[in-house]
Amino acid sequence: MIELEQGGGGFKNNELIKELRQIINLKKDWSNIEDDSAVYDLGNQKLVFTTDAFIIDPIFFPGGDIGKIAVCGTINDLAVMGAQPIGLSLSIVIEEGFPKKDLLKIANSINQISQETQIPIVTGDTKVIDKGKLDKIEVTTSGVGLADNIINNSGCQPGDNIITSGDLGEHGLALLAYRFDYQTKIKSDCQPLINEINSVKNYLTSAKDPTRGGLAANINEIAKKSKVKIILDEKKLPYKKEVVALTNLLGLDIFNLPSEGRFIASVGQENTESVLNKLKEYNKEAKIIGQVEMGEGVFLKTKFNSLRKIEMPRGKLIPRIC
Amino acid sequence: MIELEQGGGGFKNNELIKELRQIINLKKDWSNIEDDSAVYDLGNQKLVFTTDAFIIDPIFFPGGDIGKIAVCGTINDLAVMGAQPIGLSLSIVIEEGFPKKDLLKIANSINQISQETQIPIVTGDTKVIDKGKLDKIEVTTSGVGLADNIINNSGCQPGDNIITSGDLGEHGLALLAYRFDYQTKIKSDCQPLINEINSVKNYLTSAKDPTRGGLAANINEIAKKSKVKIILDEKKLPYKKEVVALTNLLGLDIFNLPSEGRFIASVGQENTESVLNKLKEYNKEAKIIGQVEMGEGVFLKTKFNSLRKIEMPRGKLIPRIC
Repeated sequence: MIELEQGGGGFKNNELIKELRQIINLKKDWSNIEDDSAVYDLGNQKLVFTTDAFIIDPIFFPGGDIGKIAVCGTINDLAVMGAQPIGLSLSIVIEEGFPKKDLLKIANSINQISQETQIPIVTGDTKVIDKGKLDKIEVTTSGVGLADNIINNSGCQPGDNIITSGDLGEHGLALLAYRFDYQTKIKSDCQPLINEINSVKNYLTSAKDPTRGGLAANINEIAKKSKVKIILDEKKLPYKKEVVALTNLLGLDIFNLPSEGRFIASVGQENTESVLNKLKEYNKEAKIIGQVEMGEGVFLKTKFNSLRKIEMPRGKLIPRIC
Repeated sequence: MIELEQGGGGFKNNELIKELRQIINLKKDWSNIEDDSAVYDLGNQKLVFTTDAFIIDPIFFPGGDIGKIAVCGTINDLAVMGAQPIGLSLSIVIEEGFPKKDLLKIANSINQISQETQIPIVTGDTKVIDKGKLDKIEVTTSGVGLADNIINNSGCQPGDNIITSGDLGEHGLALLAYRFDYQTKIKSDCQPLINEINSVKNYLTSAKDPTRGGLAANINEIAKKSKVKIILDEKKLPYKKEVVALTNLLGLDIFNLPSEGRFIASVGQENTESVLNKLKEYNKEAKIIGQVEMGEGVFLKTKFNSLRKIEMPRGKLIPRIC
């Protein structure tokens, strides 16, 4: 029996994907099969390809909706690989009886991101399923992009700094607050990252957008693939006070909170200042949050200078919100 | 409110897609947005991109399962454009409690097509949703391919012959029979078409795989896009007797029955014989089913030499089976 935990972006999700990959194992000519996007060498440039499925509750939330999150998610998965997205596909499965006005609202929100980023939606599929066989609507987006140089998750080096493009977890917080009917001004951080990443991509040694599984899952993935130890600094944690407060109130692990419009990256020391200066033009909260050393694992250096291990999330994370 | 008919592959589905395309309207650098796959010019070759979503009942059926149909559907959508598929994405949304053995069976079936065609699954997403919020499993596949020359649905010319690569409708018949617990030896025709199409693609002036909406929807699309009149010959209809019998029994329109491993195409008269000889190496039922004339619309020339109009399917087609 498949359990909810196996789709949450944490340890059990990775185990299930690994099991499926042992069966579906042809890779022929492609690399980065286990990264955010796969890469195919066209000779003069690289083709980058990714996909994401979204069934979320609520489908409209402060700061976005299921259409915006799908399109941004796919654009961002290409962007963190160093690729310029050239086109997206949009597949929608709709429950019979779904309000037409909500569908048009979602389409408008998709178009807004498409126009803003000048990334077109070029192919699609629209299916309708009998009432009761789907919870409202499911959206799957895939994307193709072109890149001269790929940013690999295995490229992080001892000596690098770990940076974030802004405060994390606001997408997760906004959806949790909405579900628990908790008053907050914090909105989802859902947004396309292509311009931000393009402005600095030549200097990033690795990059990821910390969606499912949050900072914990994504920084662990970089550490594991790059075979390095990463030390995060508790004094420089990239979370707003209100995000910390609500997460504590609900007894959740803040490191697992997803963002949908932020990235984490590693940068050589010599480039860190100029990269942060660029990123601050987009978000003034861009900052260094940790350092890379030889070794393995991810640790939090606490205010008392002790080290606490940050694990890949296990078990049921927070409610499914991305 | 969205109605089932709006997802069925017929007239109302096209209307809904047209309405969404009026909102999501950026096309930038891409052509064939309304064909089976979209096309991007890479300079020395063309990139072809498509997507398909599948929620089917039953998920295992005589001749295939939801994994096989998804992968074949995407390969075939690239193949009918004249492209060689180079990689697919696989996004799976699973209902909590779905049997693990069924998931592995689906994965094995996907791998079998991947190995057989040497087309790898290179990127994916796996989500699990709370019990009751999805009917078992949903699979969305996207695909990218490369082509030197595109087969356009608008390329059919007066004087061409209309051919099929084999008998049609067996996918639809097999699923209907299974649902109605009707004994038949007919299995789904679900299969990848890449080798068949590659063997003749330089001679096809248009091509489509008649999935949702069957022959009626797909031949009408070719006629409309190519601005030609197509006359099908009732004496040469590409349906097995048992398919005709059950369709009549159920009071359904045979021309709407989907196939998942056949294509229809137009071919110049001078090339028809050699194309059919090639195709018969794969399926001895490959044959001419009609002719192309100047004019518009699709007609059936009956045994009594009268003409009956074949309309784009309207209303609720047959039960959703692809």
